[in-house]
Formats: sequence, structure tokens, C-alpha cells
Amino acid sequence: MMQTIIFLLSLSLVAGFAPFSSMSMRARMGASLYRPRQQSTFTEFCMKLGEDEKIIVIGVAADSGCGKSTFMRRLTKVFGGANVGPLGGGFPQSWETNTLVSDRTTVLCLDDYHLNDRQGRKVSGLTALNTAEQKFDLMAEQLGALKAGKTIAKPIYNHVNGTIDAPETVTPTPIVIIEGLHPLVDDRVRSLLDFTIYLDISDEIKFAWKIQRDMAERGWTLEQVKADIEKRKPDFASYVAPQMQYSDIVISVLPSEISTQPVGTHLKVKLVQKIGKEGLPPAFILDPVSSVTVVPDKAVVKADPTSGLVLKSYKEKFFGHDVAVLEMDGKITDINDYLSIEKFISDSAAKTPTELSSELIKVGPNSPGSMDGTGLFQTITALKLRNYYEYATGKQIGA
Amino acid sequence: MMQTIIFLLSLSLVAGFAPFSSMSMRARMGASLYRPRQQSTFTEFCMKLGEDEKIIVIGVAADSGCGKSTFMRRLTKVFGGANVGPLGGGFPQSWETNTLVSDRTTVLCLDDYHLNDRQGRKVSGLTALNTAEQKFDLMAEQLGALKAGKTIAKPIYNHVNGTIDAPETVTPTPIVIIEGLHPLVDDRVRSLLDFTIYLDISDEIKFAWKIQRDMAERGWTLEQVKADIEKRKPDFASYVAPQMQYSDIVISVLPSEISTQPVGTHLKVKLVQKIGKEGLPPAFILDPVSSVTVVPDKAVVKADPTSGLVLKSYKEKFFGHDVAVLEMDGKITDINDYLSIEKFISDSAAKTPTELSSELIKVGPNSPGSMDGTGLFQTITALKLRNYYEYATGKQIGA
Repeated sequence: MMQTIIFLLSLSLVAGFAPFSSMSMRARMGASLYRPRQQSTFTEFCMKLGEDEKIIVIGVAADSGCGKSTFMRRLTKVFGGANVGPLGGGFPQSWETNTLVSDRTTVLCLDDYHLNDRQGRKVSGLTALNTAEQKFDLMAEQLGALKAGKTIAKPIYNHVNGTIDAPETVTPTPIVIIEGLHPLVDDRVRSLLDFTIYLDISDEIKFAWKIQRDMAERGWTLEQVKADIEKRKPDFASYVAPQMQYSDIVISVLPSEISTQPVGTHLKVKLVQKIGKEGLPPAFILDPVSSVTVVPDKAVVKADPTSGLVLKSYKEKFFGHDVAVLEMDGKITDINDYLSIEKFISDSAAKTPTELSSELIKVGPNSPGSMDGTGLFQTITALKLRNYYEYATGKQIGA
Repeated sequence: MMQTIIFLLSLSLVAGFAPFSSMSMRARMGASLYRPRQQSTFTEFCMKLGEDEKIIVIGVAADSGCGKSTFMRRLTKVFGGANVGPLGGGFPQSWETNTLVSDRTTVLCLDDYHLNDRQGRKVSGLTALNTAEQKFDLMAEQLGALKAGKTIAKPIYNHVNGTIDAPETVTPTPIVIIEGLHPLVDDRVRSLLDFTIYLDISDEIKFAWKIQRDMAERGWTLEQVKADIEKRKPDFASYVAPQMQYSDIVISVLPSEISTQPVGTHLKVKLVQKIGKEGLPPAFILDPVSSVTVVPDKAVVKADPTSGLVLKSYKEKFFGHDVAVLEMDGKITDINDYLSIEKFISDSAAKTPTELSSELIKVGPNSPGSMDGTGLFQTITALKLRNYYEYATGKQIGA
């Protein structure tokens, strides 16, 4: 049964949506991005970042192996800014970094604030999920400094060999994203965040992805995978999952409820948007608070015949507050059909009637999650973040 | 159980939606409408009706006791035209008539083409549902003449005493509606019709309405009502129901699928619109062919708490052809909420963003079917007919 799950799992989904957290940033980025960082041209009229010009800080919480890197690519794409690449330029001139930068955006990986290296955790006996294994004092201090426009010397956690390397210099950009296991845990860090996001992958889907990655790519046995998952579960529930309550947007990835295929093959994805957050009018179908279900006709959207396609929009309670939910269950087969899907969605924060679909079509059908709700909702989230940025700063970012 | 159905049946629905086919037209019309007919002012530039100016003929098929008179009021209201009332003015100066006229519209009741009077049917042993009991030759001849702009001398079937009375003179108007049991049965009659409608009441609802009317108003026993229904069933199935296949619009009234109350208390109503009919773009929610379900939030529409409210829009096959269906299950409690419902509906044929709801609100919450799908879809049908009229004649009727 487990093996059925493994092998019928959609390869593109797994390969793409799951990030490659054991790889260095150099390996993650395409070769064309390996170029030295240019002087920022974004700050206009000599406004000083962090003083005259507000720096927007975004927190993205997610377990490892949950598609953060894919999401970060979609985000930085919508935010624009030239010269996207690893801090320092990349191999061979520079160091092993987890930091992704463009003229406009800096993405910091919070693994860099691990208290101990891999060897040290073997001594402490704690997992990297444990909040006791993070340097929150330094995280809060450095994020505060960066937000105030100051340059910081941030430690580096080397994912390849598990060591803590010599710090790297990070200079402020108009947008700073911190991503990792614990961006919303510490009160001081959380108070520095303007916008918060949680990538929530259900246990069933996490299991399916992990089996695929760890068995196919790392040669683990099914028992090893299972044991590893069971070992992580309590710490994840204690230290990571509770951050959902603080999130302005949660993207939840669940097993499809309509697919005829084994669990994990097709996804039901939810975009959970906090109602009442300034600068975040929720995306919806037909009406922002009513419950709406759409099964597109095949003349409008060609659904995968084994998954079908259902779109939903509704309001619900989430950790005691009202949220507006957009939902996509199933998968499309022609990426151009996002043009039709976009017509169903109101307040997507697109600047033209086809910007949302164009972004998805540009990325292409083979990119992870492109044909299901993960790609759609990551792209809407990126548009919403751009919208929020413009709301909070009064500045405009071109479509 | 039957008695539970009877007494819990919504009185307003029954009293209103069920017409009073045993009453004379005089009794059916409000006193304010009893005025002599004025000279028509509708034909412009001395165009001759039926020659230079096209007369549009509409057929409305329905069983007796199915709300035709309510529907006719909604129709003539949207078509406009002054001096709505029974042909000849009404009591006491004139005769017993089934014909309703305005400057713009003539509504003929096809009972006037019964072959035999009530006594004669006792001899023949046939019901009034039987096509053998109708004078189709005369119906076709007279409708053809009227459509060609000629005056006719139409017989009168007297519903009060069951006799066939001396004919009345009917002159052409721009719109002629024939309503009754068999408008779509005869090929010759059908070929004269520009637009066809069928009011389809499911057996369960017909039963509930009939029990209410015949027991409460006529003093029948439950057994008498049941026997009468069973007696009519085979003829209805043979001679009336098959006309649905020829209808451009069918309004189907079914028991609610969401109500917590006994069968017949709340309704599920379907507006079934033929796809591809020239001049009839179907009304829909969100997308004309996809399946859409809307459960409005109570902040948007206050549903009756014992019925709830669900709106749907979908495409299906109906007697082999494609139809676009709008559906409303349940009941609202505040007639002003039609303003919100109207926002969900595209291509209602309203001329302003609030014309549909305004028409419903003007009629008021106590009018039969006002708070459920019967009122909504009769009004949309009226707007669609106006739209069709304008399409077919090139003339405009003011909103």
C-alpha cells in the first residue's frame, strides 16, 4: 500500500515542490543567476532605507521539504528587481550561503540561527525543530538592525556539512523575507514582521513527498522514512505548527478529496487569508463571505481526468479569527486554462485582467505545482504581498 | 403524515402560487383593474400589426392550479402597456371571459378551445387533459389569423358553470400569449409560436397544493383529493408533460432538498433555459456552462432558518438538447435581499443593475412565490421574454 503511494506519486509535484534543503544555494540557483551582485538602484531620490523609506519584513514559516524554495522564486519574481542570485555571487568565488538576494529583496534562511551545529545537536539530543536549538536573541537583534537600515554580520549554517560557518555581511533591501522553521515563534521577531505566511503541508502529503525524496534520492528504506517522520512529529506539533495562528496567509496542502488516484497523487490546496488585515483584501470567488463551489465545464478548464477540478471560496473560523478561504482541488492539464480560472477570481491583486495567469503561464507547466493549487495560490500570495508592500509603503511596483 | 404535510404547508405559497382556475377572470383581477379597454397607443408610425409590425406569440403550457395567473401578472407587468384587465371591461357590463388584455398584450386561455362543455365530457368519458377534447383546428386557424393582424371571434369556455358561451371578439396586440394545457401539442399551433414556456410542478408539490386548495377551500376529503389526482395522472403524462421537450424555458417546481420542514413547505425551483435559442442568452451565475453552487452568507442574504438557501447554475441535457439551469432551493426572509441575489446573476436581461430585484420588491413579500425561486424565475422569464421581443422585433420596451 505504501509502495503504491510512492510510485504513483506525481513525480513533478514531488521533485519540484519539495525544496532541496540539503543542497547549497549555489546548487539551487540556475547557472545564469551566478553573477556578482550589482549596486542597488531601487532606492529613489536618495531616500535612506529603514529611515525615510520603510523596509517591509515578511515571515514565511514552513517545515523543511515543503516547497519554500519554489515559493521564494515565485515571490521574488513578482516583486521584481534585477540580479536575483545567492548572496556573494556563488561558486567558485564565494562562500556557502543560504541567502538569496536581488536589488529589491533579501531572503534569509533562519537555519542560519541554529544554536548548535549538527554535531552539537547530537550532544544536546534535540532536533532542529526545537526552539531551544535556535538563537532567537541574535535573530531578533539582527532582524531589528536590518529593518532599521543597518548592515549585519549573520552566521551561516552550512547544510552540506552541518557546520556553522563564518558570518556573511547582509545589507538592507526594501523587502526582507525570513523563511524557516520558526519565524513566528519569538515575540520580538514577530513584532518586526509586517506580513506573515505559513506553508502548511498535511501529514499525508508530507509523508508521500518524503518517501519519494528520501527513498528515491537518498536510498532510505520505507522503515527509515517512517521512523524519521514519527521522530519529528511531536517536536513539529510543539514548536512549528502553533505558528499558524499568527499567519496572515496560510497555504494548506491536503490530499485531494475528489481524485480517483492513491493518496498523494493529487492535492487539495487552500489559501487561507486573514479577514481584517489592513492591506490584505482577500481574493474570492463571486462573494467574499458566501460559500461558492465551482466545477468548471471542460469547455472552460480541462481538468485532469483522474483528479477532476473543484474550486471553492468560503469564510470560516481559524484559530478564533475570520478567514476567507480559496480552495482548489485537483489539477488542470493545459496551463493556458488559468486564463479562465483567473476570470472566476475576484481581488487576486493582479494589476491586469490576465496578470495572474500570465505569471503562471510564464513559469510553465513543468514547474512544481504549476498545474494545481500550489502554483495558483503561491502566485496569488506573491501578488497579495506586492499589494501589501504598495499599501504599506505608498510605493508602486510595476505589473 | 398527509395531514402534517397539509397543515405545515406554507399558506402564502399555496394561496398565491396556485391559481384560481374555477374563478372567473373578474374575480381574479383586482378591482382597480376593472376599467374599459382604451384604444391601443402602442403601434408607432401607423405600422400595421401583423403586417409591417411583427406580432410575437408566446405559448405557456401548464396544468391547472400551477400558478399561471400569478405568472401572467408578472409577465404583463414587465411588458408594460396600460389598462390591464379582462377583455370587455368586466362585471357588470360584460360577459364571463378568460381573456386578459392590455394595450400591448393579449393573454388567451386555451380552455376556450375545449371541444365539449362539462356535460359533454361526461358523455365522452374523457378528461379536459385529453387532446381529443380540444379544437386544435380552430385554435390553429384563429391564432394564425390573430398573428396576421386579423380580429377573431373566439369561443368562451365558462369555468363557472362549465358551458361553452357565445364567442368574444379579440383584436390583435403586439404580444399574444396563449396559456393552457396544450399550447405546444399541435404542430400548426406550435409553428406559430415565437417563444415557448412550460410551468412544471412536480407531483409532490402539486399534491400538496391541491390538498390545500381542495380540502381547505372546497371541503373535499383527503381520499377525494387523492382519487382525483390519481385519475388525472395518466392523461397528464400522455397529453401535457411531453410538451416540455418543445419549451424554450421550463420553470420546474420541486420539493426542497435542504429544508428541515415537511415536503411541500419549501421549494427547489429550476429555471431551465434552452441553449442556442436566438434572442435567449441564458441567465447564469459566474459562468454559463460550469457548475456553480452558492450558499449565501447570512450577512448577504437572510435565508429562512428552516429552509436555508442554495443557488445553483449548471448546464445539463434536457430531452436531448443542452440547457442552462439556474436553481434556487429554499426561501429568503427579507425581500430586499434580492438586491444581493441579483448581483450573483449574470445575463438576467435586466436593463439596470437592480431592475430584477426592483420588480420583485415592487410586487412585495406577500405575493405568491415572492420569497422563493418561483417569484425570482418568473420575473427573470418575464425579462427574458421582453429581451426576446426586442430581439425579434427590433423595438424597445422601457425598463
